[in-house]
Amino acid sequence: MQLQLTSPLDMHLHLRQEGMLQNVAPLSSKSFNGALIMPNTLPPITTKEMLLAYKKEILEATKEDNFTPYMTLFFNSSYDYDFLKSLKNEIVAIKLYPAGITTNSEGGVAAFDIEQLRPTLEAMSKLDIPLCIHGESNGFVMDREAEFIPIYKQLATAFPKLKIIMEHITTAASAKAVLEHKNLYATITLHHLYITLDDLAGGMLQPHLFCKPIAKRPEDREALLNLALNAHPKVMFGSDSAPHPKSAKEAPGCAAGVFTAPIALQALTELFEKHNKLENLQAFVSDNAQKIYKIFPPKKEVVLVKKEYTVPSSYGDVVPFLANQTLHWSIQ
Amino acid sequence: MQLQLTSPLDMHLHLRQEGMLQNVAPLSSKSFNGALIMPNTLPPITTKEMLLAYKKEILEATKEDNFTPYMTLFFNSSYDYDFLKSLKNEIVAIKLYPAGITTNSEGGVAAFDIEQLRPTLEAMSKLDIPLCIHGESNGFVMDREAEFIPIYKQLATAFPKLKIIMEHITTAASAKAVLEHKNLYATITLHHLYITLDDLAGGMLQPHLFCKPIAKRPEDREALLNLALNAHPKVMFGSDSAPHPKSAKEAPGCAAGVFTAPIALQALTELFEKHNKLENLQAFVSDNAQKIYKIFPPKKEVVLVKKEYTVPSSYGDVVPFLANQTLHWSIQ
Repeated sequence: MQLQLTSPLDMHLHLRQEGMLQNVAPLSSKSFNGALIMPNTLPPITTKEMLLAYKKEILEATKEDNFTPYMTLFFNSSYDYDFLKSLKNEIVAIKLYPAGITTNSEGGVAAFDIEQLRPTLEAMSKLDIPLCIHGESNGFVMDREAEFIPIYKQLATAFPKLKIIMEHITTAASAKAVLEHKNLYATITLHHLYITLDDLAGGMLQPHLFCKPIAKRPEDREALLNLALNAHPKVMFGSDSAPHPKSAKEAPGCAAGVFTAPIALQALTELFEKHNKLENLQAFVSDNAQKIYKIFPPKKEVVLVKKEYTVPSSYGDVVPFLANQTLHWSIQ
Repeated sequence: MQLQLTSPLDMHLHLRQEGMLQNVAPLSSKSFNGALIMPNTLPPITTKEMLLAYKKEILEATKEDNFTPYMTLFFNSSYDYDFLKSLKNEIVAIKLYPAGITTNSEGGVAAFDIEQLRPTLEAMSKLDIPLCIHGESNGFVMDREAEFIPIYKQLATAFPKLKIIMEHITTAASAKAVLEHKNLYATITLHHLYITLDDLAGGMLQPHLFCKPIAKRPEDREALLNLALNAHPKVMFGSDSAPHPKSAKEAPGCAAGVFTAPIALQALTELFEKHNKLENLQAFVSDNAQKIYKIFPPKKEVVLVKKEYTVPSSYGDVVPFLANQTLHWSIQ
């Protein structure tokens, strides 16, 4: 038994820099045809020069595959129309982080004052540049995503022509909200389709399952599964694969991030098969994203075969999601 | 400025065995006059011989102080009246664990069938032996304690003369339930008065704050503070201090437990002072427990002085709660 996927895309990917990038980028390009590259590097990507240099670094690391890095800028309310226009052909989206909400987001937006953000968001709207948002408040960890929903709604209403992507949604509340505004869309990760807070902290504590937003309740996962397995046109796959060295995960002050890139397609296939929804996987991992972002990736066929595959215990010094577990699908 | 506490008691303490016991027991006996000793050793304490041997081990490890180990048995529905009567002078309570709910609880109660538990609970009731319960269901981690409340209520109603201690309560729901039945009481830990899930997983992940029951929401902590700071006669201090070696905490599959014994009195004093409730600390850390358990510890005065004290980074290979932080109260 096999499944052919055409041009799979990962619409939320952290490739990091230097040695880590050399380690992880080829693992994404083996599975995926392209990915939306997150800009929260150190320092974050905020200029054309940085963007082009980062893109070059990624292309070099993935040169054995036909891989397209869809680049993003780190949102900054000083970006004006002319600056964004000059970058229109280089970027696919701009990523907005509330300040301090996740890895390397210290330079993010501290207060959601629509008037202060308006010039940049209007320019993006005119230039048809989507806005990706890590939507969490600074409230109690289980409430942060739900507390951010009014801001999504306010932005969606104030900028009706701006495409807004609710990144890595984790709650039933977000799964509902994305359907309520025409210009809201969402990415869903692999791990939030697999785990709940129980997997992180219900038995022993599992630092390799610690991520932001934190995995939520079983009913939240159900709501995400409902959208993903049916490949609702408002949602697409974004792994949020976020590698950290083992030493940063297995210690007090463990960094947030689950590394899923090399096993994401295999695990998604297993999940969709389990729910008898294999026919929707193509849309979830590629077609929906192409329509939402208006991107046209070069054609690449990835064939998954029903053959047991044991996930390695690590890739370099990074421990992947489902390490040492056996999946029933492999990439041919 | 100083505060004198008379015969402070820790009514929920894990001392472990052998090397770990040698390390941690003297740290409890330096601060506390006595403690209720949890029986979830390997194997759990289920016979008179084991109980006496364990008590002897504890007395030897704490011989430099005048310390009373109040012993408990690991609940088992095979205990009958005669067996319990023969132990009446040796035990202060029996501790019930739902099977598999925490460290070394595999031999606990798998199903709460009142009829099956009835003979033992009636014998305890007649002999006036309190029942301590780790009250969690096997449901979603944030709901486990609340889901167990109906069982507490059922037991409290079915055995109205049995004193039932809701151990280490962590939720507003439990703080309410304990007031609703005359024969329900509760212990509250230090760490659940200090932290919420945010401290464990809201920033970076902090394995040394991982415990069972897991720390809950800010409003839950508020409800616990309200009972503890007012030294409500239904509640008493029980640290649930649960040491694990650093290697078991700072690794995937991190063990549940926060080690608070050596700094509990200092941190409680700081907390009660901050809330202008120092006058209630004596009741919370001793008087309430004496009344609930009808115990009469030998008199011992512990004097806390307002003098800065930096918590050590570790005690042997155990990292304490608030490691490296500076408290404003020290034990004289």
